[in-house]
Amino acid sequence: MKRIFEVQPWNIVTHNFNPDDKRLQESMTSLGNGYMGMRGFFEEDYSGDTLNGIYLGGVWYPDKTRVGWWKNGYPEYFGKVVNAVNFIKMNVKINGEKIDLAKDQFSDFELNLDMKQSLLTRSFTITKGAAKIAVKFERFLSVAQQELSVQRLTLKNVGSSKAAITIDSAIDADVKNEDANYDERFWNVVATDQQTETGSVLAQTTPNPFGTPQFTSAMEMRHVTTLKPVAVSDSNAKQVVNEFAGELAPGDETTFEKRVIVVTSRDYDSNDALKAAMNQLSDQVATQSYDDLFNAHAKIWADRWEKSDIQIGGDTEAQQGIRFNLFELFSTYYGEDARLNIGPKGFTGEKYGGATYWDTEAFAVPVYLGITDPSVTRNLLMYRYKQLDGAYHNAKQQGLKGALFPMVTFDGIECHNEWEITFEEIHRNGDIAFAIYNYTRYTGDTSYVLNEGSKVLTEISRFWADRVHFSERNQSYMIHGVTGPDEYENNVDNNWYTNILAQWTLKYTLEILDQVSPEQAKELGVNDAEKKQWQDIVDRMYLPYDKDLNIFVQHDGFLDKDLKPVSAIPEDQLPINQHWSWDKILRSPYIKQGDVLQGIWDFIDDFTPEQKKSNFDFYEQYTVHESSLSPAIYSVLAADLHYEDKAVELYERTARLDLDNYNNDTVDGLHVTAMTGGWLAVVQGFAGMRVRDGKLHYAPFLPKKWDHYSFRQVFRDRLIEVDVDQDGAHFKLIDGEPITIDVAGKAVELSK
Amino acid sequence: MKRIFEVQPWNIVTHNFNPDDKRLQESMTSLGNGYMGMRGFFEEDYSGDTLNGIYLGGVWYPDKTRVGWWKNGYPEYFGKVVNAVNFIKMNVKINGEKIDLAKDQFSDFELNLDMKQSLLTRSFTITKGAAKIAVKFERFLSVAQQELSVQRLTLKNVGSSKAAITIDSAIDADVKNEDANYDERFWNVVATDQQTETGSVLAQTTPNPFGTPQFTSAMEMRHVTTLKPVAVSDSNAKQVVNEFAGELAPGDETTFEKRVIVVTSRDYDSNDALKAAMNQLSDQVATQSYDDLFNAHAKIWADRWEKSDIQIGGDTEAQQGIRFNLFELFSTYYGEDARLNIGPKGFTGEKYGGATYWDTEAFAVPVYLGITDPSVTRNLLMYRYKQLDGAYHNAKQQGLKGALFPMVTFDGIECHNEWEITFEEIHRNGDIAFAIYNYTRYTGDTSYVLNEGSKVLTEISRFWADRVHFSERNQSYMIHGVTGPDEYENNVDNNWYTNILAQWTLKYTLEILDQVSPEQAKELGVNDAEKKQWQDIVDRMYLPYDKDLNIFVQHDGFLDKDLKPVSAIPEDQLPINQHWSWDKILRSPYIKQGDVLQGIWDFIDDFTPEQKKSNFDFYEQYTVHESSLSPAIYSVLAADLHYEDKAVELYERTARLDLDNYNNDTVDGLHVTAMTGGWLAVVQGFAGMRVRDGKLHYAPFLPKKWDHYSFRQVFRDRLIEVDVDQDGAHFKLIDGEPITIDVAGKAVELSK
Repeated sequence: MKRIFEVQPWNIVTHNFNPDDKRLQESMTSLGNGYMGMRGFFEEDYSGDTLNGIYLGGVWYPDKTRVGWWKNGYPEYFGKVVNAVNFIKMNVKINGEKIDLAKDQFSDFELNLDMKQSLLTRSFTITKGAAKIAVKFERFLSVAQQELSVQRLTLKNVGSSKAAITIDSAIDADVKNEDANYDERFWNVVATDQQTETGSVLAQTTPNPFGTPQFTSAMEMRHVTTLKPVAVSDSNAKQVVNEFAGELAPGDETTFEKRVIVVTSRDYDSNDALKAAMNQLSDQVATQSYDDLFNAHAKIWADRWEKSDIQIGGDTEAQQGIRFNLFELFSTYYGEDARLNIGPKGFTGEKYGGATYWDTEAFAVPVYLGITDPSVTRNLLMYRYKQLDGAYHNAKQQGLKGALFPMVTFDGIECHNEWEITFEEIHRNGDIAFAIYNYTRYTGDTSYVLNEGSKVLTEISRFWADRVHFSERNQSYMIHGVTGPDEYENNVDNNWYTNILAQWTLKYTLEILDQVSPEQAKELGVNDAEKKQWQDIVDRMYLPYDKDLNIFVQHDGFLDKDLKPVSAIPEDQLPINQHWSWDKILRSPYIKQGDVLQGIWDFIDDFTPEQKKSNFDFYEQYTVHESSLSPAIYSVLAADLHYEDKAVELYERTARLDLDNYNNDTVDGLHVTAMTGGWLAVVQGFAGMRVRDGKLHYAPFLPKKWDHYSFRQVFRDRLIEVDVDQDGAHFKLIDGEPITIDVAGKAVELSK
Repeated sequence: MKRIFEVQPWNIVTHNFNPDDKRLQESMTSLGNGYMGMRGFFEEDYSGDTLNGIYLGGVWYPDKTRVGWWKNGYPEYFGKVVNAVNFIKMNVKINGEKIDLAKDQFSDFELNLDMKQSLLTRSFTITKGAAKIAVKFERFLSVAQQELSVQRLTLKNVGSSKAAITIDSAIDADVKNEDANYDERFWNVVATDQQTETGSVLAQTTPNPFGTPQFTSAMEMRHVTTLKPVAVSDSNAKQVVNEFAGELAPGDETTFEKRVIVVTSRDYDSNDALKAAMNQLSDQVATQSYDDLFNAHAKIWADRWEKSDIQIGGDTEAQQGIRFNLFELFSTYYGEDARLNIGPKGFTGEKYGGATYWDTEAFAVPVYLGITDPSVTRNLLMYRYKQLDGAYHNAKQQGLKGALFPMVTFDGIECHNEWEITFEEIHRNGDIAFAIYNYTRYTGDTSYVLNEGSKVLTEISRFWADRVHFSERNQSYMIHGVTGPDEYENNVDNNWYTNILAQWTLKYTLEILDQVSPEQAKELGVNDAEKKQWQDIVDRMYLPYDKDLNIFVQHDGFLDKDLKPVSAIPEDQLPINQHWSWDKILRSPYIKQGDVLQGIWDFIDDFTPEQKKSNFDFYEQYTVHESSLSPAIYSVLAADLHYEDKAVELYERTARLDLDNYNNDTVDGLHVTAMTGGWLAVVQGFAGMRVRDGKLHYAPFLPKKWDHYSFRQVFRDRLIEVDVDQDGAHFKLIDGEPITIDVAGKAVELSK
């Protein structure tokens, strides 16, 4: 655990600059507008350790697979988010000397991410020889105009002598991905346009042998300043620079604005169209003031918070945590573009690659259902439907029928290359099916499940039906050789979670097949023999259970382990994934993230309190929560079991996971999909929100440390506010038709 | 299966040259003298596909580990056999044009490996413009003088016009390893010496960051020829060339001899000493004729064959197979140097790296015991003793006590980097213990086991005692998370073979501890508590067994599989390792090489015929023998069970594995450790040789196809000849004191 930012309700702010924490600072001050995003790296060159990273949604490169030992079935490439052409670059010279915070003397440092308005500000006062200049950088990525990046630099001479100022504003294609497998560069510059006060760069991703698309990005910069353009510049084949110069007398202040339009071939089908769009959009924003641009952006953020903010009284740490969660989630994805998804690091780093993991369906879908319009979640479901071809390919790679959705992907085709994950962590296919059910249950909208969804379900079911085998000895269907959500176990047999999800998927698909239109049924082509086989699997699926302990067994053999609780691990060996050899982790009973408990969370209404209690009590003692996705689920279950202190402890861990660098790996980027955890813990956990038979249920409690908490929730054309304080829970209908909800077993009517 | 060489009893010969089979030809015509070896690549440059490879025993490079995803505990480097400086290079120009068989027209091609004398000959008649020259290359690596390589080139003008001849003889350091992880070159040239008729190259392996030794090789070439030296040459910073020229009138013949001395820093501690040794050895051989050099070499090979040849009558395929086995084994290792071991590809290719696998102890030790002086095997045991420090390191990497001998190594430190192998295929530690027992049982020599061996056994036992865990639920000791010899199962629990070997090792170590001297016991420091713990593990080790089938179960869950026999796999899906996704292989019941049956082979006298039969019958049907080490063991067991046809079928597969390219991977090099298979099948299988209580037992049968077979066997200072024909088995004492042996239950006295 390491906390480098101050605890404030709406801001991520620090007045310290520690070069050793530079990457961590960058991760934590990332900005995004769904279309593009960036780490909080400096505008100007920094000669110390840094991870400069800007990422454009859906722009990726198929990096040739690198492994130690090839295994049959490995994918040919790993889809990497491409570190984009750097368009925020801006170097400042004072009396001819470049600012470089790795070397210069400076004071009054402040780095401030305003989450309410999505604005990043950095200021400091720098001394360069006789000159003393107060510097302030501001930047935002507009959510009003997604192609727009706006920067403002304010320089004030706070010294006693005149200072010559030069600003080099650049678009620089000399960037690389740190995680490139073969140290290749992913961008080729196609064209540059260099004018005195403006410039543009058109760059294309390098050709690849895998037949995946090349992407082109076009970026144009415009500037608003009273400084004078200088003809000479540092432009070269890879970057375009506009230079501006002037003088600041003591006490003088000047501002320098940079606006960049970023368009990509994802939206335009030729370089000409790309340039035309870039020019047109640049012209549009050129006439608007900084304030107008900013206000349009800030208003949308205000609307988002209006709909979804969670307020917590009496615990600023908890308050900051949940806001940071929602802020980074929204920065990554707000559902505008059905071709995009929620990458594990969003726009905050390169690690892991891919745009889509099962995190989306398992963790993000329940949250987006509660805080955004249903169309946002529906887009996430459509994303998978559109990638069915890739999923067929993946199943075929393993010699199986139907569709296997990938562990990691951009285009539906599996990218990951650890056999125990790629080939074996197949519960993901069930999670994707479950999200369809979850969406339908929450929204009441059957239009997806009866159409596209039924196709997805059918093909997933075909995969499961081929992937199970019948054990003659046990007279039951089994699934051997899998990795469950607990990735600290590999290649196990009969993972309860995988088996129950496979069984459930087949059952649900059979139900849906009874409801689809005759045309759709014909299209799906599931005949009676196939249905009969599926029903047989449903009826005779093996689900490991231990009678003595009254628990579902994570997988065959789990109970034969050396069952010592986490408390028996010496402190200095935690986290075990940074201290123990992989084999030791595997044969230990320690659980990275909920596995049986993930299943109990999914089907929480299907188990008795005794079942939930015995499973929670048993598995919790072995869980190390070394996955960022783990604590939230346990928090919800703890709340369900009235283990309130445990629920709160786990809330804190999930909500401040990155803010307090719990897993010691936030330098690589934020755990964006885990940003769902705070919301799940508060809404499903503390407030006990469930949807049963189309009806909202709550069973709230107030954490002891808190004065109150409140949140707003979208549900079937209503916006409901829930406020829980020491007097109890208060419900208010903010918008929509009257509705009856259930509060701790009692019906409550809500109307405006 | 692919056969590209003719079937002859003593030769590997072909009259075809197919460029598509070039690498396969090269593997199959490899030469070695234990000290160094090489693939059968061409002396002259060849512009087509080829894998030039010369390897010097014990000269290796720590190649930085390359993996897709790092796992804790992975080794930092993979020790690779370094492709040595090419000292056999010899280019021939005819009328100024270089010979290149990829482009030239030629006839009368013959490639001939004489196994009796270890001589490789290649001849052809080439047409270059008006010239027609018969070319013959001969080469051998002397076993009389291990640092010596001898080549002879004979050129005869068989055309009708005069031909100008130029020969460029070179030592060329511009070589690389195809399997280098980062495309690095492993050699730096330190010094070259260029004279008109001689030359030398001193090269050192490049520096490495891992602290392992750099190796230096020094090579000097001398020539014997009537051609005239030419001053101008193609020498450069990486190679030294001596050029010779002359003319051949029609009908004229000339010979050109090249002798190279190869010394390395393994034997000399300074470059000066290296050069001095090189010069001295070069001088020594300079005065000897080709015939003298060759005869000294051939005599030693004759002695080896005298002691160990297996003769098979009536089946030349079988005869050629067993001779090829023994020839390549002896070329790799004949025990002269206790610092060396038997790499899986010997000197025939680069794949796999490392010098030592458990193959040595499990498969090679029983063979070397039977055909060489006990000191050869003792050297193999000493090799492990000397690497104990590395084995401590490996155990520590996994957080465990004692010693874990590596899967792959040069210096004792683990090199391999697949977690399921590196960390989990730990049965190897038991195999190394078992080899100590095997040596002691066969030779009757207790000097190793009571001294160095007791240390090795104690440290291995400490590893096992820490690696097992006690299952409270089962009240027994278990070993979770292992890979058995059947590598088509990974990360399984309670692999019967691993568990029984661990149990046996502890039991055997306790026995040995009772026999060691008080000084040695003190040195080992095993106290009563430790002994008690080991005894408890011996007493309560869990060994999976199925009562209904009366079989030992390969591991927990094996019997839950979809148990279809190999015969159910469509032909076009074999070998499965070239057709199936890894996960499909893992969850299938198919066995790469014997696992339970490997254990039954080890402890063959400890099981009843019924137990052996039920296990063999059960597991054989699921075994695909896709490991080169597999068929021999099954052949022995089949013979033991009187399944004679099965035994012979499996003999053919093992003895001709590379000759017939059974596993379709001989292009990479030969399966050197699997060359033990033919001997095991004949001697342990067909002849039923066992050692029980210090006495030799036989129970021979004659394969139906064969007229007879005979072999010689070394046993406790005797050389015994066994001859089996249609009249029965005949035993003869060739050398040593009289001895009583047991033949099919009857005592037989042998004396000279």
